Amino acid sequence: MISMIRGCIRAAPCATDDDAAVMPIGRDDLVVCTDSVTFERHMPEGMTYEQFGWMAAAVNMSDLAAMGATPIGVVSALLLPKDMETSQVCEIMTGVDECAEFCNCHIVGGDTKPGNGVASVTAFGVMEGRRPMTRKGARVGDVIAVTGELGAAAAGFLALANKFDMPDAVSALCAPIPRVEEGIALSSSGLVSSCIDLSDGLATALNTICSMNGCGAIVEWDLLPRSQYVDEVCSRLGVPDRELTIGWGGEYELLFTFDRKDAETLYELGVDFSMIGLITENDVVLHRDEKYEALGYGCY
Amino acid sequence: MISMIRGCIRAAPCATDDDAAVMPIGRDDLVVCTDSVTFERHMPEGMTYEQFGWMAAAVNMSDLAAMGATPIGVVSALLLPKDMETSQVCEIMTGVDECAEFCNCHIVGGDTKPGNGVASVTAFGVMEGRRPMTRKGARVGDVIAVTGELGAAAAGFLALANKFDMPDAVSALCAPIPRVEEGIALSSSGLVSSCIDLSDGLATALNTICSMNGCGAIVEWDLLPRSQYVDEVCSRLGVPDRELTIGWGGEYELLFTFDRKDAETLYELGVDFSMIGLITENDVVLHRDEKYEALGYGCY
Repeated sequence: MISMIRGCIRAAPCATDDDAAVMPIGRDDLVVCTDSVTFERHMPEGMTYEQFGWMAAAVNMSDLAAMGATPIGVVSALLLPKDMETSQVCEIMTGVDECAEFCNCHIVGGDTKPGNGVASVTAFGVMEGRRPMTRKGARVGDVIAVTGELGAAAAGFLALANKFDMPDAVSALCAPIPRVEEGIALSSSGLVSSCIDLSDGLATALNTICSMNGCGAIVEWDLLPRSQYVDEVCSRLGVPDRELTIGWGGEYELLFTFDRKDAETLYELGVDFSMIGLITENDVVLHRDEKYEALGYGCY
Repeated sequence: MISMIRGCIRAAPCATDDDAAVMPIGRDDLVVCTDSVTFERHMPEGMTYEQFGWMAAAVNMSDLAAMGATPIGVVSALLLPKDMETSQVCEIMTGVDECAEFCNCHIVGGDTKPGNGVASVTAFGVMEGRRPMTRKGARVGDVIAVTGELGAAAAGFLALANKFDMPDAVSALCAPIPRVEEGIALSSSGLVSSCIDLSDGLATALNTICSMNGCGAIVEWDLLPRSQYVDEVCSRLGVPDRELTIGWGGEYELLFTFDRKDAETLYELGVDFSMIGLITENDVVLHRDEKYEALGYGCY
């Protein structure tokens, strides 16, 4: 769909292959991204309106974070059922505002119309002299790293569905933390060769990076910073841990690559990350239990 | 709804009472606005998908124009029925892109998800050193002026509904021209005391300006630059011309005010505008046929 749309509009001089665009303004770079969430697709039973609002902002803040931009504002276009109560609309906007506050900025505009339950948020940020991190740039031999932990959102989804009492996992799903501070720190280092967020899951994100850079990757299962909730949910439900850890989306950690000689300098930034593999020449594979298997695109 | 939402979020330092927000970036001012259009509310029978896309962009460009900003880019979040054909999606994006091109900028990002037929567009502009025009500032004694002609969009709506052959009126409705160039020229003059677009119709726009500035207004019916299509549609359908001229929305001209001593300087800008009345102390009235009647809010 994206390539089809690109075929019918003029190419923007500032177009990137990323989820956010970069536009020069004066001496700074403006970074812009837009994304919609809907009641139907993004609001599992148990998610509050406030969390829905947070989510609507967070998915966009995460796109800014992947470029290393400093958020400066968001606008939200809501399309909401006519029978929604005023207090519920307020809860959504409170959630958007709380996420904006977490990212040190404000809601600066918006629009509300009747509709089916959609929040289209546009977030913008500035680079303040830093070079934007993009998906393009990973080189053979680079280390692959991810911030935070993996799989908590997927575990939260199954916890909600099965009424398990796992508030932290549910929170990872319903109010994900966009890695804005981490993105700013990583971009300010100038050492990151490529970066992407995990909104579509690790498997899809890494395949995207590899296909964009004409390279492969090897990921070590034992190095993946798996959330404790993955193990707990998997053992209670008897489901395999691979899909939850790398196949699901709704995860807002950053995946990034860098030259291995820079590992120490990056650790000194104070960003919490784990090195999970290496960029290689060809296939994208997962190494687990002494076997290599193709790391296909995730289910998201 | 707007005031309710404002009550539940933190006030943005850059908040205005206008449809667009202004944020300082470096030495420039970034202007941002967002607005959604939907198949259900904004796509009368006879409107093409391309026109729908143009409209989605134009309503936002018009908000930039009212501030006098120079557009630098748009992003579009589409929510479209799953059974829409690829070519139809392309037509919408072509329409957005054509409007962006008319305004000298590009589509820089977007998102497409399944949904009921919504295009949420966010437009960005910069002031390039000009002072943003706002709704606040009209003073008693100021002249009230509008760009272009009034009522063509309303006439176009009735022409479509009644299958009258009036392509220019239908075009005014379905592919309205955002007054971006005019807005830039007016703001560069530094002589405009307040400005608003006519997206909700002249009556509502002028009442908004007056209530925001604690003043009244008198509008001379005979000075209104009425589109020829208003007369034609009204005589064919036997409907009164007042509502079509000032009561309907979907009009994207600019209404602005200025000190009467500056009229000549403003005419020299080359902007096509008509002086239609004066800002007064109290009531908002229309003077027609030697009678004064309240100029209430329009039907939009």
